[in-house]
Amino acid sequence: MTESHDVQAAGILRRAWLVSIGTELTLGQSVDTNAAWLAQQLAAIGIRAERHLTVGDELPAIREILAQAAAACDLIIVTGGLGPTEDDLTRRALAEAAGVELETDAASLEQIRVFFAKRRRAFTERNRVQALIPRTGRAVANTCGTAPGIFIELNGTPCYALPGVPFEMKAMFARDVWPHLRAASAGRVLRQRRLNCFGLGESDIGARLRDLMAPDRNPQVGTTAELGIIGVRINAEADTVDEAETLLGQTEAEIRARLGHIVFGRDSETLAAVVGERLAARRETVCTAESCTGGLIAKMLTDTAGSSAYFVGGAVTYANELKQQLLGVPADTLAELGAVSEPVARAMAMGARERFAATYALAVTGIAGPSGGTTDKPVGLVYFGLATPADVTTRELRFGSDSPREVTRARAAHAALNLLRLALVG
Amino acid sequence: MTESHDVQAAGILRRAWLVSIGTELTLGQSVDTNAAWLAQQLAAIGIRAERHLTVGDELPAIREILAQAAAACDLIIVTGGLGPTEDDLTRRALAEAAGVELETDAASLEQIRVFFAKRRRAFTERNRVQALIPRTGRAVANTCGTAPGIFIELNGTPCYALPGVPFEMKAMFARDVWPHLRAASAGRVLRQRRLNCFGLGESDIGARLRDLMAPDRNPQVGTTAELGIIGVRINAEADTVDEAETLLGQTEAEIRARLGHIVFGRDSETLAAVVGERLAARRETVCTAESCTGGLIAKMLTDTAGSSAYFVGGAVTYANELKQQLLGVPADTLAELGAVSEPVARAMAMGARERFAATYALAVTGIAGPSGGTTDKPVGLVYFGLATPADVTTRELRFGSDSPREVTRARAAHAALNLLRLALVG
Repeated sequence: MTESHDVQAAGILRRAWLVSIGTELTLGQSVDTNAAWLAQQLAAIGIRAERHLTVGDELPAIREILAQAAAACDLIIVTGGLGPTEDDLTRRALAEAAGVELETDAASLEQIRVFFAKRRRAFTERNRVQALIPRTGRAVANTCGTAPGIFIELNGTPCYALPGVPFEMKAMFARDVWPHLRAASAGRVLRQRRLNCFGLGESDIGARLRDLMAPDRNPQVGTTAELGIIGVRINAEADTVDEAETLLGQTEAEIRARLGHIVFGRDSETLAAVVGERLAARRETVCTAESCTGGLIAKMLTDTAGSSAYFVGGAVTYANELKQQLLGVPADTLAELGAVSEPVARAMAMGARERFAATYALAVTGIAGPSGGTTDKPVGLVYFGLATPADVTTRELRFGSDSPREVTRARAAHAALNLLRLALVG
Repeated sequence: MTESHDVQAAGILRRAWLVSIGTELTLGQSVDTNAAWLAQQLAAIGIRAERHLTVGDELPAIREILAQAAAACDLIIVTGGLGPTEDDLTRRALAEAAGVELETDAASLEQIRVFFAKRRRAFTERNRVQALIPRTGRAVANTCGTAPGIFIELNGTPCYALPGVPFEMKAMFARDVWPHLRAASAGRVLRQRRLNCFGLGESDIGARLRDLMAPDRNPQVGTTAELGIIGVRINAEADTVDEAETLLGQTEAEIRARLGHIVFGRDSETLAAVVGERLAARRETVCTAESCTGGLIAKMLTDTAGSSAYFVGGAVTYANELKQQLLGVPADTLAELGAVSEPVARAMAMGARERFAATYALAVTGIAGPSGGTTDKPVGLVYFGLATPADVTTRELRFGSDSPREVTRARAAHAALNLLRLALVG
């Protein structure tokens, strides 16, 4: 389909409106993450998302917003409302806004049939709806799901409609939308970079970067915090990509000089991926022994494709019996000191490293809460063990007894991965 | 401040627009969660959030949106743009939209001074800006932060402006806004329920519920799909909570009759939590043996507080050696048939159940991708094993070779948990 879009005929694109459709969004039953993602993609090619509009599954309201957007901006991107059920109204609203009929697109219909055949699922007549495209529009192929997207001009303004399912929308946008938009954008470039940090709080990082965070500076620098990871965002605006990249590079170098090993990665790089890369480069391996994180560290390590090169496996030992059986933690240590203790973290790490034959072993035992805490061992108390070829080190952290379970677990998993990262950095 | 609002003078509130202000939102550097939260609070008292509008820190655009909203709805709630910095423009936009001047509110100024004194931080002249309120407006006290909120009528439409920091916004809304809104709402109640389903596609569920999904029906029924889980949303409007609950109950019963065991839970209940509840009720336990899901099933099971009552632990066996060592999978089976095969899934489940001494064992082995697939065993092919006291059953599923790694992993984890759920249902 790629060659048939003509977004480039519409003039230089500078200002976009993003329209998210779905009553589950307006009623707050789901949080829209598509608009933020799209805005970032557009910013990277100098197209500013000026407004995000969210509207329910109501034909008149969708039509009204499309008309308003078509009169006010250079580009409209709609997400949602392309499914096969009665409440999916985007196709119809686009056709009405363009003043044309819906027609079955033969190629899309065939793609939908193939999609169902591949998955050995029955094609139903309801799915035929998803091949309907407004007469003056064109289908945008969807290889991940059933609903094709739609490209259409509304009153001369190019408009893309994409599915609301994030992974389908992202794949379609990257493959069939973004290249056209880039070719049609103004040339003024907004480039973003994010430095991911672990080991200092947001206000401490803010204090070290204070002058760089002045509001009128270019690049702009800002921080966000999530589950112990502080993201330092850098936004540079320039006439050319080279110029913007140079600006980003200078600010990044300055930030790295001030933060040192606190910075562990860039953009979407996770702690687990960074650890994995280092392990792969050294041809070393890791295994895990998890209690309170319950498999989360293993899950994070295996989020990355190709992680079998360095992750051999791990044990999730909730029951004390399994800590003994799988990891060789001595029964008397468990009995005397309790499962949440420094010696147990040490024994878990040692046992896992020996038995699972990995270069390193990460162990975690703690109290994720909300119950199970005592005065001596409050909720949020976590012990870490790291076994290396040279030795075993342990660490105690307290995440706060009012921290929600999922927050404590995620912060503990990050802290464990960071221990290994620092060991690999040397 | 509570007594000075007069939102109740503005007539019955039914339809709200939510306005989120901040360039970090329009550029996609932060995801707005405030609007969804507010929409849920409003829905509970029968006020429907019809639109969410997000706009950057630009005075003319904010003014334009406020004017449009004032003409179109019964209630406006603005979040963001109340901070002390140059780009915080909500106060000014409200004053201009109302056609009045900004004036210093003495009580707010005093509160800000006290806030700083309590925290032993220096009060700067910049913070004085935060005590400015449009002349016809009133301050809404903020006990968590520095910026007071504002209540003002715009062209007769009541408008609240609250800070963008979620915990401040939520505290202020709950204490000083919601009680007034409840008193001024129609008495008409909007109640929501969600039935979570697994085991049928969205279009198949849509086909079975087609008549219930008619757009003018009350309760309204709609569907959303995410990682194999289909949510069937039911929204009922009525004069009383009892009446709305009755309507919800009737529609829920009808949907359950049509979908049977496809429905696994309600509202925010996850597959893992439902499985856990059933296990706990039966005083039975489960263990896991994971290859391609890499700890995700264990992580999901242990997301729930108190999961140690039924989750004993598990093995994450990425390397074949660990499949042999920890689970007793025969080396020749692995060599002859490969790790991704039905007999290996069976052996993993049997081995885990015996060795970890749980009532049930769930095993998963597959190819999460994106690489590692062959013609015979494509990416997305996953084998499941479930060992029970009675027997071991296996299952093969194909998630599609173009499905992203994280999607295949999550869908596989859900499918595994669903196998156990169905076994527990009987």
